[in-house]
Amino acid sequence: MTQPIINLTRGMPPPEVFPTEDLIECAEAVLRRDSDVLLQYGRSPGYVPLRQWLGQQYGVGPEQVLIGNSSMEIFAFITQTLLQPGDRAFIESPSYDRSITLLRRAGAQVVGIPLEEDGPDLTALEDELKQGAPVLIYVITDFHNPTGITTSLEKRRRLAALAEEYGFWIAEDAPYRALRYKGQDVPTLWSLAPERVLHMSSFSKVLAPGLRLGYVVGPAEMIATLAQWAVDTYIGPVFPTQGMVYEYCRRGLLEPNIERLKEVYRPRLQATFSALEKHLPQATWTRPEGGFYVGVTLPEGIEMVSLLARAGQAGLKLSDGRGFFPNSSNGDRFLRIPFCSVTPEEIAEGVSRLARIL
Amino acid sequence: MTQPIINLTRGMPPPEVFPTEDLIECAEAVLRRDSDVLLQYGRSPGYVPLRQWLGQQYGVGPEQVLIGNSSMEIFAFITQTLLQPGDRAFIESPSYDRSITLLRRAGAQVVGIPLEEDGPDLTALEDELKQGAPVLIYVITDFHNPTGITTSLEKRRRLAALAEEYGFWIAEDAPYRALRYKGQDVPTLWSLAPERVLHMSSFSKVLAPGLRLGYVVGPAEMIATLAQWAVDTYIGPVFPTQGMVYEYCRRGLLEPNIERLKEVYRPRLQATFSALEKHLPQATWTRPEGGFYVGVTLPEGIEMVSLLARAGQAGLKLSDGRGFFPNSSNGDRFLRIPFCSVTPEEIAEGVSRLARIL
Repeated sequence: MTQPIINLTRGMPPPEVFPTEDLIECAEAVLRRDSDVLLQYGRSPGYVPLRQWLGQQYGVGPEQVLIGNSSMEIFAFITQTLLQPGDRAFIESPSYDRSITLLRRAGAQVVGIPLEEDGPDLTALEDELKQGAPVLIYVITDFHNPTGITTSLEKRRRLAALAEEYGFWIAEDAPYRALRYKGQDVPTLWSLAPERVLHMSSFSKVLAPGLRLGYVVGPAEMIATLAQWAVDTYIGPVFPTQGMVYEYCRRGLLEPNIERLKEVYRPRLQATFSALEKHLPQATWTRPEGGFYVGVTLPEGIEMVSLLARAGQAGLKLSDGRGFFPNSSNGDRFLRIPFCSVTPEEIAEGVSRLARIL
Repeated sequence: MTQPIINLTRGMPPPEVFPTEDLIECAEAVLRRDSDVLLQYGRSPGYVPLRQWLGQQYGVGPEQVLIGNSSMEIFAFITQTLLQPGDRAFIESPSYDRSITLLRRAGAQVVGIPLEEDGPDLTALEDELKQGAPVLIYVITDFHNPTGITTSLEKRRRLAALAEEYGFWIAEDAPYRALRYKGQDVPTLWSLAPERVLHMSSFSKVLAPGLRLGYVVGPAEMIATLAQWAVDTYIGPVFPTQGMVYEYCRRGLLEPNIERLKEVYRPRLQATFSALEKHLPQATWTRPEGGFYVGVTLPEGIEMVSLLARAGQAGLKLSDGRGFFPNSSNGDRFLRIPFCSVTPEEIAEGVSRLARIL
């Protein structure tokens, strides 16, 4: 009997959560109403009604909002406009592997700041600052990828103060922020240092990733710089999908969709904790209150290479934890569990298989 | 009495040609059928059914097709993957100003090859080759932007042979190719040297620019390299619009749409020739058989700066011709007339105003 493979590698929503019929209705309505704009060349920084709507969510004008074809590419534009080869850039260790790649592609000297239970290790950060301030630091403050950690308010305040003191930029990547299953929101870094923070988010986790619709909120001059870079790259981002998302938001559908997603994802997070407690008491793990990921640190003595091989034989697909660390000699015992993309039953079975091969 | 401003700056379709209702129907059908794919993360090189459809048009498999969010950005990826700072890159002089910008952004040493009535000046090109082969040459072989010129078959054959002899890449940008109002197609450069040519095109001119849907056809290994660069930039291009365009093509709507566009644009090209003959006999101009542009060389003694100022006073918006030349000391007498975006009456009035201020 072959057992079905359980895939714990991808931080993606399950397809059953997509509000397809609502998006079809929105596409029809907005294209019929505004095709002259949505089908024509439109410039970066994006569809004005959606920029206005997003600005209202943050209490800023549209001149402080740029829309792009994914927040990932917006971060690429940030690295391309801010960084010169050899510049220092700090990033949490571990962090989102694709962001590490983009910093390196821009020629940055990437410095990993160890992540603690309540956010970056600020003592390590200040030690690094003494050796040379970075041009920017990239952080995922809410329900961090890959660990699920949320940075405490105290650490956010200190990070904001250091950014102002040393004059570096903070790229705050917040795609998971709206998906909080318990507890209270912590103020964004952007709200604490609006002149030093570029706050990025997207509709990938709260609506649908295929839209590739990301945005950044920041100081108007920096938004203008990014907009010029974007114009010189592709003229403007894809417009019909911006229209669909604007219509979806304008109709008040986003908030109920987020509430629905929370009802789907909350039991999956709980199932992850239960499975870890039952099958892997010898490991340690983070205790996120939202987002997509739980970060697991396996017992000492684990080697990632042999673990991945044995997992494959047991019908379990895992991400190589080392990929999330700027210095890949770390991460040999680190596993990311992306609990949203699998059912509670699959989570239980996956963690049980993991325990068996350890 | 204020006269309405006539805008001769933008190479864009007039909004009345957009097939909005057909696109709405296609969006509905394809999203309902394939939302699990179109709303999910999808990888570069793009939506498989559309890559297959495009491949069939060129007689290649989907592994030779990459879709991106505009052919302009695909060209950015080509420059980023192929060029190192200081590398030589050739471009027709004049050429599309945004492509010159992208080559410079990649650090290329940009060399302009004068454009003649039947394509690049190959004597000048061979002289430059002796001083050092480029990594790539960027050409717009059909209904060139900004001149409207189509490169002759003889010159295409020689260009293809030189690319093979010297081992450089040819980026063949062909967004206007399908819009031929008279005469016969000339074989693509890609068909003459498929191992050395990256053939780019898009749906901007034959369907709608707001879709930002471009593609490149080339050798499978080079497509794989570009796909990896694209994955590392934005994971995948925007998917719902790819689905819409695929459905539009699958239903056989693209060819009739192109025929309809030709009926709209053909009289505009004719009106441009008539107005130039009537009002500007002292100028010279190209005789394109398709596309979006007629290139006009004004009589000697014209200075672009004062011309633009006087045009503004006369209610006429013109593009600065110097922007199309890699060496902007050229172009002082060059004007691009983008005839598709204006009615025959506006063309006649615009050229008449131009004649008055000269």
